[in-house]
This record gives sequence, structure tokens and C-alpha cells, in this order.
Amino acid sequence: MEWIPPNHPRRTSLLMREKVVEGVREGYVALQGLIAHGRGECFDYLIGEETPPPALEAERAAAAALLSAQLPVISVNGNVAALAPEAVVELARIVGARIEVNLFYRTPERERQIEAVLKRAGAAEVLGVGEDAACTIPELFSERRRVSCRGIYAADVVLVPLEDGDRTEALRRMGKTVVAVDLNPLSRTSRAASITIVDNVVRALPNIAKFAAELKGLPREELLSIVKNFDNDANLRKVLEHIARRLAELSQRGVALQFDVGSG
Amino acid sequence: MEWIPPNHPRRTSLLMREKVVEGVREGYVALQGLIAHGRGECFDYLIGEETPPPALEAERAAAAALLSAQLPVISVNGNVAALAPEAVVELARIVGARIEVNLFYRTPERERQIEAVLKRAGAAEVLGVGEDAACTIPELFSERRRVSCRGIYAADVVLVPLEDGDRTEALRRMGKTVVAVDLNPLSRTSRAASITIVDNVVRALPNIAKFAAELKGLPREELLSIVKNFDNDANLRKVLEHIARRLAELSQRGVALQFDVGSG
Repeated sequence: MEWIPPNHPRRTSLLMREKVVEGVREGYVALQGLIAHGRGECFDYLIGEETPPPALEAERAAAAALLSAQLPVISVNGNVAALAPEAVVELARIVGARIEVNLFYRTPERERQIEAVLKRAGAAEVLGVGEDAACTIPELFSERRRVSCRGIYAADVVLVPLEDGDRTEALRRMGKTVVAVDLNPLSRTSRAASITIVDNVVRALPNIAKFAAELKGLPREELLSIVKNFDNDANLRKVLEHIARRLAELSQRGVALQFDVGSG
Repeated sequence: MEWIPPNHPRRTSLLMREKVVEGVREGYVALQGLIAHGRGECFDYLIGEETPPPALEAERAAAAALLSAQLPVISVNGNVAALAPEAVVELARIVGARIEVNLFYRTPERERQIEAVLKRAGAAEVLGVGEDAACTIPELFSERRRVSCRGIYAADVVLVPLEDGDRTEALRRMGKTVVAVDLNPLSRTSRAASITIVDNVVRALPNIAKFAAELKGLPREELLSIVKNFDNDANLRKVLEHIARRLAELSQRGVALQFDVGSG
């Protein structure tokens, strides 16, 4: 990509894109991760590229879930490592979570690269790399089922930013509380998770961290009650209504938004 | 990507994705083309992965525009070559259009690869490759302004499936009728084109060809009147309303749609 002018209206979005493309060039983001990023750009654009009000509620519930956990784990894939490694490390620090590499297209080299990215961002320990991913998630096939026995396998609360539907469902069947960050409010992940945050991961992780700093110190029952009072289906409906309303407004205003950068 | 089961609910979408990834591996689709494809997946999903009724009107108007042209040209980039080379060649045959390679990230090697893909799909001649791209579109910079003097430069009607906003606007300023295929009804391309088809290119090109076969033989005045009666802004508003209505329905029904495949 060419140089992006400082005043470009879509600068933030283009810089994020550049980070993911860089991750592909370095080898730790899969080509399919770029397609997933493009889908995310589109949904982010539809919510207005800012945290929609219902997502703030979900982010607060997520903070409560992570703080109330016995063993919280943050799962990191290539796209998350490219976009928000510092935010992962900072959130893990505040809620006392372990960090685990968890890839859809798992290779030892990509695992080690992502571990290195996270350690550069300040992580003391990164699980799920090489021999550490020795436990298996039931009902999943191939390399996708491998997780760390000290991490996702043992966790009671797992934060999965950018996860696929199969794995989210499998983690739920294992009895875990799954917090997902997914810009698509209609995805299987969004439907299957205990708490779904429809927000860009670069905004969601710092928001959760901010709420966690506020809620820290509350009695565990109060945290659990925040989690229990969160209705994921109702929250997703609110997000869909938010998007539908926004599109209806845009179609009436006939606003020319700038979204396209060439694909050729 | 692993093997896709024949009964997978998102098989068509996954196969398209695989074609674009393959184009990257072969070298003629840019990494940014994958991100653009992901954005397209998202918008296609929002319109229901089928041609919305307003797009059929646009496809009919596009057929009339191409048939009424003195010199129609179909512009082809990496993503189009990966997804629908046969449909390009078939449409060009029916409306008597020339085919031109036109890349955002132009390199001689990618041009030749795309020429080869199109020739394998049956194209007799492919313009815009190497020295043939000797004319320039005013007001554009770098390699993006280069076009064939016998192709896009001289054309009165240009079909640009998957084009960027800058180039669409520049072609319009040159006085050309621009037919765009763009799944994002809010993009600058969509706003700037004379006729915008909000549909997946793999459905749009065969649809235009079908309408062209029906309209072929009509007097030129009748064709021009079809084009003149097409209101692009009104059509885009109808598409946006279609999407907004669909999202509102989905949020009420709470339907679990399957959209996600892992990005990790």
C-alpha cells in the first residue's frame, strides 16, 4: 500500500489494514486472515467505526466475567497479534489472565512468531506454543483442537477475539464462559458465545480493560451478577437494530461515504 | 483452507474465497485484493448472497448501455480474473466488447498472468498488457493511470467490475458511461458510476449477459432510452433499504446464520 496521508478520512482503517498485510508478509497471519480482516472492515464500517452503545454493555459484562474467573485465558490468533498485541498484554495484566496462542491454521513457526510478537509487547509467558498445546478440545478435528493444558483447556472463562464458530461452540459445550469479540452480529460465534462484543478488537480490548479497572475489587457475587444480567441475544438484536437504523439514515441522507480502495 | 464438504451451507462462498486465495498464491491477485474480497463477502452476506431486485434493474440497464455503445470495454483486475474469467469472455462475446487488464497494483508479470487466465477462458485478445497500456487517464497518478489507447482510453462505455473510486470518477470526467459492479452501495465507486450493480460479480456478469441476449437487436434509441430511464441514486437507495429491511427482519427472527470461518 502506498503512503497514507495524515488527514486521510480512513487513515485509522488503512493503518490497521497495513498491520495485517505486514503480518502476512512476516508469515504469522494466514492469507485467509486477510479475507477475515476485510469482512471485519465492512462490519466495522456498518457500525460507524466506533463502539456502538450495546457493545459497551457487553464490554462491561466481559470485564466482570474475566475478573470473576478462577482461570481466565485470552486466546490470540494471527490477526489479533498483528492488530493489538499491547492491548492483549495490558488486559491480561489487569484481569490476571493467561495468554495463549490459538490458530486456525496452526504451524510451529507461526506459533513461535506470535509468541515473539506478544513477548515484544510485554507478555511474560505465552501458552499454546509447540509441545505446550498438548490437550485437545473434544469434537474438533485436526490441529484446531490442540490447546494448552494449563490454558484454554483448564480455563473457566476464555476471551476469544476473532474466533470461528466451531471452536466457540466446542468451548461452550465444555462448560466454559466464552467472551467473543466479533464484528459480525449474525455469525455463529456471535450466537454461540456467552458474551459477544460487536466491536473492533482494537477498541474492544482497551474498553474491557478500562471497565476491569473500574470493577476491580467488587465482591465476586456482584461481578457474577453483572454477568448473569447480561442477555447476549437481546444485545445482538440491539446491535442489528443499530446497524439497520444507520443504513436507513444513510440511504435517506444519500451520504457519499468513502470506503473503497482498489482491489486490483 | 481445508476441503469443503459438499453440503456445507456456505460452500459457494468458501469456494469463491479459495479461488481468490489461489490467485494470490499464483501471484496475480494482490494481498489487498484478499481484503477487498473479504469486504465483498460481508456485503454479499448482507444482501442475502443473491441478486437483490434493484440489482436486476441495474443489470438490465448495463446490458442496454453495453449494447448501445460504439466501443464497449470490460476492465479486468486480479479478483475478477480469479472469480469469473469465463463470464467476462462470454459477456464480451455477446455485447461485442473488448477486454482490458486494468490493475491497481500494476506489474508486467501480473498483467501477463491475467492475460493468460483470460485467454485460457477463451479470450481472443486482451488489451492493456505491457506496451499496450500507453495512454493515460488524466488526473490519476502513477501506474494506475495507464490504459490501452484502443481500449478504455477510446471507449464510450466501460464496465468496471470491482473498481476503485478515484478511477471511476476520472473515467466519468472523461465523459464515459461507467458501469460498476460493487457490493458496497455506499462506496465512492457506487456513487460515481453511471450505472452501479450492487451484486456479486459472479452473478452480475452472467445476469448482464442474459439481459444482453434478450435486448440484442433492439433499435439503438430504445437501448439508450433504457439507459436514460435508469436512476442510479434511486437504485442505490433501494438497495440500502433492502439491506436495512433484511437486517431488521433478521434481528427480529433471531436467525442464526452461518458466516464465520476462522481467521486464525
